[in-house]
Amino acid sequence: MKKALILLGCPESPAQTPMALYASHRLTNAGYNVTVVSNPSAMRLLDVSDPEERYIQKKTDIESCLENLKEGDFDLLLGFVHKDAAVAYFVTFYHILNTKSIALIFEKDSQLLEEFENQVKENTEAQIVSARAYHNPTPIRVKLDKAIGSLED
Amino acid sequence: MKKALILLGCPESPAQTPMALYASHRLTNAGYNVTVVSNPSAMRLLDVSDPEERYIQKKTDIESCLENLKEGDFDLLLGFVHKDAAVAYFVTFYHILNTKSIALIFEKDSQLLEEFENQVKENTEAQIVSARAYHNPTPIRVKLDKAIGSLED
Repeated sequence: MKKALILLGCPESPAQTPMALYASHRLTNAGYNVTVVSNPSAMRLLDVSDPEERYIQKKTDIESCLENLKEGDFDLLLGFVHKDAAVAYFVTFYHILNTKSIALIFEKDSQLLEEFENQVKENTEAQIVSARAYHNPTPIRVKLDKAIGSLED
Repeated sequence: MKKALILLGCPESPAQTPMALYASHRLTNAGYNVTVVSNPSAMRLLDVSDPEERYIQKKTDIESCLENLKEGDFDLLLGFVHKDAAVAYFVTFYHILNTKSIALIFEKDSQLLEEFENQVKENTEAQIVSARAYHNPTPIRVKLDKAIGSLED
């Protein structure tokens, strides 16, 4: 079974937790075994959102995940990028895993959005899925659906 | 079967959607038939969070809900209060439903938190469950668990 790693950013964005649940559900339906990696606050938001672990079964802490991570561990990296720190983590995971990667970039400020896109482009060859969005998840969801759909082709 | 209405506020708070899913799950397990009422943005966040409608089956728009709402429609009102507008909606729903009500108040700023508490106290006799919280849902979850537990006694 193919394995996907969803890498979350800081928990401040109101769309992040909902989109993490959604992305995990979509990737699971597309045949992936999904692990979500995040900092402790973002993980607590996932815990309360999905008390029966219906959408996300495997969660792991970002620091302990990085300690043991190596090439070949995952077939797909999906990184949520909406902060500088998230760009840095995405680039790190990208170069360790060295596999098919998607950066899901969302920000309400269009200048910051472009900055994050440029940083990802400069440092990786990941597919970029970006949307100007804050608390309305629809633009992000529509673009993510397309990207996941193209994985299945 | 007892009926509960969960009233959401604006979607900007990163803890709101996770706590809405959690509260619906807890109340369902406590024997309530749960409806969540919110504005369209908050509802879209619920839609992507719970694509199989595992935790929330009934969602309704706040304006159309208000048009038809009357005393006796619900046995319990649980309102999420983290903005001025949410206080106003909570007070409105409280006085129409005239039933057991809980205001779940959360804010990162302690002065605003106190303000919201005072506004709810001045205008209703609802039970107040409040926590200083932004993206860490644990303080809110723990207090909500207690409040729901005491409903069952």
